[in-house]
Amino acid sequence: MTDTWLESLQTPSAQAGYDLAVTLARRAIREIQPEAGVRAHLRETYARDADALIASSAVVATHFQTIAAANHYWREN
Amino acid sequence: MTDTWLESLQTPSAQAGYDLAVTLARRAIREIQPEAGVRAHLRETYARDADALIASSAVVATHFQTIAAANHYWREN
Amino acid sequence: MTDTWLESLQTPSAQAGYDLAVTLARRAIREIQPEAGVRAHLRETYARDADALIASSAVVATHFQTIAAANHYWREN
Amino acid sequence: MTDTWLESLQTPSAQAGYDLAVTLARRAIREIQPEAGVRAHLRETYARDADALIASSAVVATHFQTIAAANHYWREN
Amino acid sequence: MTDTWLESLQTPSAQAGYDLAVTLARRAIREIQPEAGVRAHLRETYARDADALIASSAVVATHFQTIAAANHYWREN
Amino acid sequence: MTDTWLESLQTPSAQAGYDLAVTLARRAIREIQPEAGVRAHLRETYARDADALIASSAVVATHFQTIAAANHYWREN
Repeated sequence: MTDTWLESLQTPSAQAGYDLAVTLARRAIREIQPEAGVRAHLRETYARDADALIASSAVVATHFQTIAAANHYWREN
Repeated sequence: MTDTWLESLQTPSAQAGYDLAVTLARRAIREIQPEAGVRAHLRETYARDADALIASSAVVATHFQTIAAANHYWREN
Repeated sequence: MTDTWLESLQTPSAQAGYDLAVTLARRAIREIQPEAGVRAHLRETYARDADALIASSAVVATHFQTIAAANHYWREN
Repeated sequence: MTDTWLESLQTPSAQAGYDLAVTLARRAIREIQPEAGVRAHLRETYARDADALIASSAVVATHFQTIAAANHYWREN
Repeated sequence: MTDTWLESLQTPSAQAGYDLAVTLARRAIREIQPEAGVRAHLRETYARDADALIASSAVVATHFQTIAAANHYWREN
Repeated sequence: MTDTWLESLQTPSAQAGYDLAVTLARRAIREIQPEAGVRAHLRETYARDADALIASSAVVATHFQTIAAANHYWREN
């Protein structure tokens, strides 16, 4: 049995959509590197590396684009 | 005869769509480097390299965008 | 309680949309590196590094694409 | 008072749209590095660095995609 | 006379679309580096370099996105 | 007077669209580095550098996506 971590791309607000984009960006790293200890160690390094932070921000941007489209850009809100 | 590894972009849920995105991201690496042994060796290295993990996450993000559009963002679910 | 930093993707003009894209690009960095001091230190370095500046510009471009679509490209203005 | 540097994404031609994409790509660099002197110095270096030039071209490509969509790909012209 | 290497973006299946994406990704490299010998030599190196493989996978992902849209995501199949 | 180098995004075929994508990718490099001699020198190097070739292929992929959309993916052909 796999646990459910992604129910839907629909979010109540743009900001919640952005948070979900961060979650989606992190998830791929977890799929490739399942050991939490290794990830925590890597995180200490890349959270102090400008290039890695910018590259992470790029991944968030792509996911946010997907989520924003899924929510019709929260235009009605 | 080639074996079928991709039947459809339709998935029952967003999470299954994300899993398919991971599969699509990995597949290109297999097409370029067909030797499983070499890939396993590379994987050991890049699964401990933050830059490679973030770059992989970017590829997953692009594929997820495609799959999400293919599934109308699972809006009816 | 989380504070609200993103109310909407709607902006009165294309230029305001561009400014919002810069905000969205920066936000992911803040999510991953919450310490303002560390960010300020990194910023001094990457603001003088052409590769980092170009990579940042790429993130802004992706967010601007999302925001432009959200605003129907400000076509009526 | 901020000065206006982006009036509209509408351009009379595809070529003018491409020029605007170059402007948008450069603008983010200016937002992050406001000192013209530093930018001029960096530019001397990266204009002779193939990797930086290709990365810049990627940013232009993303902005051009946005601008082309905004102009319905100049199909009527 | 130039030879025809790309007839159409329409493919009978998603998997065939993925194969075409790999072809499109490779083609640009051929356009820039026309000498087959040099390409074969480079290929030996980058097929053993995780960063290059991931970057190649990113190019395939972008082309696959285009081809999937061209085929309405093979939804009827 | 500027010379016209981009008349339209419409092309008679997908292959011609791909060629145009290569042109658009190269153009940004010319805008940033106007000296033909410097570009020729850089080209000799990056045409033998796998990372640069793959990065160039990524730029072509983004432009091809734009051009394909502009041509409704050449579906009628």
